[in-house]
Amino acid sequence: MTATITRFPGPSRPCDKIVVALCGGVGGAKLAHGLYQILDPGALHVVVNTADDFQHLSLHISPDLDTVLYTLGGRADMDRGWGRSEESWRFLGALEEVGGETWFQLGDQDLAMHVLRTHWLDWGKPLSAFAQHVARKFDIAAQIIPMTDDTVATWVTTDDGLMPFQQYFVREKCEPRIRAIHFEGAGQAKPPAAAIAALKDPRLKAIIICPSNPYLSIDPILSIPGIKDAVLEASCPVVAVSPIIKGRSVKGPTAKIMTELGIHPSWEFIARHYRGLIDGLLIEDGDSSEGNMNFHLSVQSAPILMKTLEDRRRLGETVITFAESLQGQPRRKSKPPPVVLYRT
Amino acid sequence: MTATITRFPGPSRPCDKIVVALCGGVGGAKLAHGLYQILDPGALHVVVNTADDFQHLSLHISPDLDTVLYTLGGRADMDRGWGRSEESWRFLGALEEVGGETWFQLGDQDLAMHVLRTHWLDWGKPLSAFAQHVARKFDIAAQIIPMTDDTVATWVTTDDGLMPFQQYFVREKCEPRIRAIHFEGAGQAKPPAAAIAALKDPRLKAIIICPSNPYLSIDPILSIPGIKDAVLEASCPVVAVSPIIKGRSVKGPTAKIMTELGIHPSWEFIARHYRGLIDGLLIEDGDSSEGNMNFHLSVQSAPILMKTLEDRRRLGETVITFAESLQGQPRRKSKPPPVVLYRT
Repeated sequence: MTATITRFPGPSRPCDKIVVALCGGVGGAKLAHGLYQILDPGALHVVVNTADDFQHLSLHISPDLDTVLYTLGGRADMDRGWGRSEESWRFLGALEEVGGETWFQLGDQDLAMHVLRTHWLDWGKPLSAFAQHVARKFDIAAQIIPMTDDTVATWVTTDDGLMPFQQYFVREKCEPRIRAIHFEGAGQAKPPAAAIAALKDPRLKAIIICPSNPYLSIDPILSIPGIKDAVLEASCPVVAVSPIIKGRSVKGPTAKIMTELGIHPSWEFIARHYRGLIDGLLIEDGDSSEGNMNFHLSVQSAPILMKTLEDRRRLGETVITFAESLQGQPRRKSKPPPVVLYRT
Repeated sequence: MTATITRFPGPSRPCDKIVVALCGGVGGAKLAHGLYQILDPGALHVVVNTADDFQHLSLHISPDLDTVLYTLGGRADMDRGWGRSEESWRFLGALEEVGGETWFQLGDQDLAMHVLRTHWLDWGKPLSAFAQHVARKFDIAAQIIPMTDDTVATWVTTDDGLMPFQQYFVREKCEPRIRAIHFEGAGQAKPPAAAIAALKDPRLKAIIICPSNPYLSIDPILSIPGIKDAVLEASCPVVAVSPIIKGRSVKGPTAKIMTELGIHPSWEFIARHYRGLIDGLLIEDGDSSEGNMNFHLSVQSAPILMKTLEDRRRLGETVITFAESLQGQPRRKSKPPPVVLYRT
């Protein structure tokens, strides 16, 4: 008798149903991880924001993509919220010694991703191929797809002037007041074939918009014409999870940015932001309505704050159940407004 | 009363006398370190082989330049013979995990040099400017000058085919039999202005050829037309230290390569190799003459094996004293043959 040993995730089985998640960094990756835990292997397709990508020390850094890969690959630092677990910082110490810029923290292990990615891009391979390669190396039984293989870069106009996203986010610690957000190159960018294939797949059961920053993480994804169109045309339910809980963002500057853009930080304004695009919005239990919406949207409440691994799995189940409940109901009626560059 | 505190090496003092050393990696760097210890601050100018430089993972690696900078900067690993002391290897582990090439060992601290150098070059700054920058950061009171800012690459023709130097040296561990050595791009390369300025400086007291591999470390330097000419035209003594001791190379493949090229590995053949270029050769105490030379050369013996830091200092003193003793004597008569591509 012989035993056939197959390596996890094993030979690809066709899934009955697939799910697409649109995702930014930390908060989004947590829900993606929850979905990953409850769905069949191969069912989850995560389309990840790359407008935060930037060149640093001539290395190509993809913060959100790496966060998703580390999180689903079981390598993310749970406490710090970004980067790899059990990280060390000897490179950064040596870099400081020779006068290199150290405002962006590059861990010794994390650096392997940046160096190898830069090398792949240098040799003309697309970012999506690198993401797929790393996902396989990390034994991730899900598709991790950057929103585009083209260059799209978030710039923010602030009271301190125009600056690239990472300068605003890391160097300036989100302190300058935002007046406008721009996604340079978005209009000309194309999504990778795998993203469109997933969004047009007849097995598509739900599109989930993760609780990432709508303005800085989800809008860039939707600013890619092919993706926004495919989401609008999908016949399955589209469900978002509110990144705002009791008027605050769980992590990051969502609420602060909303206020600066003249928008009241509440789930209602998240609903308005995604108006025409989503069929359902999942909000935190006990979050009260602060206004009336003059458009139809299914809103459901549940504990949506994710502190533990179990919270992620539970929210994944909740959001999928919610999406299933919307299946076959009248679809959202209106086309959404185009993604706008917010100007105050 | 006020005190003026100046940072070592302090304001540059004009030196009465300067010395130029031509140098490869480990063995050469040891003597450069010995010279550095005994000469006045600012007196030593080290011209370093860069034909071993190569692109690895799209990073620009300069093995010999870094060895010299680490050695004179007090950061070299004394036991391993290359790289930095107290090095760690977490980057390399993470790189292996994502399927990157790991045959060339990149330490976490060492990597800072490669990343920052690649960034400088990417922005159009010359390699010599980077070397000068790092030397200053490491408080090295000597000029560390790459032999050229242009691309020169050593290729070796072996019984296993043509291969770039690092593949031969690191990946193949010098095992294939060498049939020829080529310095691609050498004919068109120019030396940095600082190298020529030092070699033409009226204060120049000696040119020292370090005990590096003549074929793989020193010949590339001499293959740069401007440098070879300046050495030939210098009026000061030119002294070499034999890399062969009792028929063997201290470290590395010098003796093996000599044999493969049909040259008997002895100091006499080192003398013949540098014929017309050098005035004096320092050999190991007790190394007997194995043949007659039909050209004039001052040969002196001393303990030239460097095991300790004190050995380096002592050899530095010996070689400078030897060079001083040759001052004013009749200069080498013949022009050297052109640097040849050795073919067997």
